[in-house]
Amino acid sequence: MKKLINSADTVVADALAGMALAHPDLLAVDHENAIVYRATPKEQGKVAIVSGGGSGHEPLHGGFVGEGMLDAACAGAIFTSPVPDQIQAATAAVDRGAGVLHIVKNYTGDVMNFEMAAELVEAENGTEIATVITQDDVAVEDSLYTAGRRGVGVTVVVEKVAGAAAEDGRSLEEVREIAQRVADNGRSMGMALTSCTVPANGKPSFDLPEDEMEIGIGIHGEPGRHREKVTDAADVARQLVEPILAELPEGDGTGVIAFLNGMGGTPLIELYVMYKEVAALLEDAGVTVERSLVGDYITSLDMAGCSLTLVRADEEILRYWDAPVLTPGLRSGK
Amino acid sequence: MKKLINSADTVVADALAGMALAHPDLLAVDHENAIVYRATPKEQGKVAIVSGGGSGHEPLHGGFVGEGMLDAACAGAIFTSPVPDQIQAATAAVDRGAGVLHIVKNYTGDVMNFEMAAELVEAENGTEIATVITQDDVAVEDSLYTAGRRGVGVTVVVEKVAGAAAEDGRSLEEVREIAQRVADNGRSMGMALTSCTVPANGKPSFDLPEDEMEIGIGIHGEPGRHREKVTDAADVARQLVEPILAELPEGDGTGVIAFLNGMGGTPLIELYVMYKEVAALLEDAGVTVERSLVGDYITSLDMAGCSLTLVRADEEILRYWDAPVLTPGLRSGK
Repeated sequence: MKKLINSADTVVADALAGMALAHPDLLAVDHENAIVYRATPKEQGKVAIVSGGGSGHEPLHGGFVGEGMLDAACAGAIFTSPVPDQIQAATAAVDRGAGVLHIVKNYTGDVMNFEMAAELVEAENGTEIATVITQDDVAVEDSLYTAGRRGVGVTVVVEKVAGAAAEDGRSLEEVREIAQRVADNGRSMGMALTSCTVPANGKPSFDLPEDEMEIGIGIHGEPGRHREKVTDAADVARQLVEPILAELPEGDGTGVIAFLNGMGGTPLIELYVMYKEVAALLEDAGVTVERSLVGDYITSLDMAGCSLTLVRADEEILRYWDAPVLTPGLRSGK
Repeated sequence: MKKLINSADTVVADALAGMALAHPDLLAVDHENAIVYRATPKEQGKVAIVSGGGSGHEPLHGGFVGEGMLDAACAGAIFTSPVPDQIQAATAAVDRGAGVLHIVKNYTGDVMNFEMAAELVEAENGTEIATVITQDDVAVEDSLYTAGRRGVGVTVVVEKVAGAAAEDGRSLEEVREIAQRVADNGRSMGMALTSCTVPANGKPSFDLPEDEMEIGIGIHGEPGRHREKVTDAADVARQLVEPILAELPEGDGTGVIAFLNGMGGTPLIELYVMYKEVAALLEDAGVTVERSLVGDYITSLDMAGCSLTLVRADEEILRYWDAPVLTPGLRSGK
C-alpha cells in the first residue's frame, strides 16, 4: 500500500488537522468529536444544515462546510458512519432556533445513526430536525451496505442547493422540501478503472484485472453491474448516461445540472475528456445542460474512475445552485 | 494502460473540448490552435498575460484562464511544448495595446518557443512582450528537459499574482517586476509514489517498485534526487520542507504562501495529511504561513505524489494573491 499517511489509525484525525490548518478563515474543527464547523458561526434564525458520513470521500463532507452550504459535517472513520453522539453534538451546536436539516446518504449505518441522533437531539435539546436521504445511484437496487439505492453524487447538489435556501432565510420545511426535490430529481452512475485501498486493510478492496473496468461501482468499492474490458471514453460515457436517462424524471421542460465527478485517482484531463462525451450524448438525447460541474467532489480514496450525476433542475434549484458559496471544496468564484 | 480517453491522438483535443463545454461562461477555445481564451475578452489598456506548456498538468494552464489570472493559455501535446505559431497567435489575439507578459516554465522547448514567438509577434504585430521564466524546483540543477532548474509549482502563484496586478491596471514593466519577484522568491520540491503514464507510450514512464518512492521527481517523471522505501507523511514532509527552506530567500521578516500540490493520482485526504505535517515543520522552523493552497493545480497525468512550493510573500504579493479570481481551476470564493 502506497499512501501519503502516517498510519491507518491517524489518517482521519491527521486529515482533519490539515484541513483546519489549510482553511483557518473558513473552518474550525472539533478534533475530539471529529466535527467540522464554520469558522464564523451563523446568527440566530437561519436553518442549520448538518451532514456527514464515512471519511475517504473528500472534499465531501467537511470540505463543503462554509457560507452557502453546510454548518457542520461529522467525519466517521474511513468508509464508516459517524456515531449518534457525534451527530447530536454537531446538531446541537449549530442550532440557531430555526431547526436543523440532516442530509444523509442512504447507507444503513448512516441512516440509523442520523435517525438516533435526531431523536436524541429532539428529546434532549428540543431542536426541530428534518431529514433528507439521498439515494440516487441507479446501478443496483440493494447493495453491500444499503437497503435500496446508494446515496452518491446528488448529495453534493443537495448540500449546495439546501445550503443556499437556508442562507436565503427559508424555513426548515421549505429547505427540506427543496432538498428533497433535488434528491428526487437526481440520478447517478459510477465506474472504476481500479480499486481503492482502505488504509486499515492495506490492500485493494477488490481485484480488477489490468485490462478490465467495473461499471456501476459504489463509492466504497461495492460491486456494480458488471465488469468488462476497458473501452474508450465515448463508450464509458454511454454506459453512464443511458441508465441514468432511463430513470431520470422527465421534468417539465427543464434541463439538467450535469456533474461529472472524479473518484480520487483520476486526473482532471481525463474528466474533461469524459465530460466532452457526456455532453455530446446529452445533446443527442435532447437534454439541455443548464449548469455543469467537473472535478473531484465525492471520491473513493485513491480509486481511479468517475461518476456522473444528472439533476433535473427547475428555476428555483438553478437559482440556489448559482447562489454564492465559499467553502474549501466549492466556491462560486470572485 | 487504464485511462478514460478515446485515443492517445485525441486526448488533448478532447480535453480542450470538454473544458470549453464545462465552462462556457468562462472560456472560449480555439480548437484549431489549441488555445484557451477568456470567454469575455478584456477592454483596451490592460496588460495581457499568456502562458502555456505541455498538456498533462491540468488545471495548469488552461484552467487558469479567466478574470484575475491568464488571458490565454497555449496547450501543447502531452508533455510537449506549444509551438511558436500557436504562442504568437495567442499573444496577438489578447494584446490590448498595453503589452503582453509571457509566463514560461523553464524547460528547453518552452523557453525556446516562447522566445521565438515573442520575436515574431514583436516584429509582425508590434506587440511589446515581457517574459518571466519560473525555475523553482530545488531538486536538481539540470534535468532531462532543462538547463538549470525546472519550473514547477511557483508558476501557479506567478500566474495568480501577475494576473491580479494586470487586472489592477499596472504597466507591463510593473507586472513583469512583480511576477519576477514571485518567481525569485519561490522554491519547490516534489515526490512520487508512482509513475505517470503518457498515453502515446501506453506504459509507465519509469518503474518504481511497489515499496519505493522517488524524492525530487519532476512533473514529467524526470529523475529526482533519490529513491527509498516508502516512509510516512511526516518523513516525506521533512524531505520536501528541508531542501526548500535551505534555498528559500530570507525575506524581510515576511512569511510564506504554502502551496501543497497533488500530482493527479493522489486523493485530497492524503494531501491534507501531508499539509498537517508541512505546517508543523514550518512552525518549528519559525516560518509564518500567511496563506495556503492545498489541491491538484499542477499535475503529472495520473502520477501519485505531491509537491510543495513555498513563496516568501511581501505585502504586495499577498494583496494580489488575495485579489478576486474567477477561473475553472482557482476561485477566490463567493
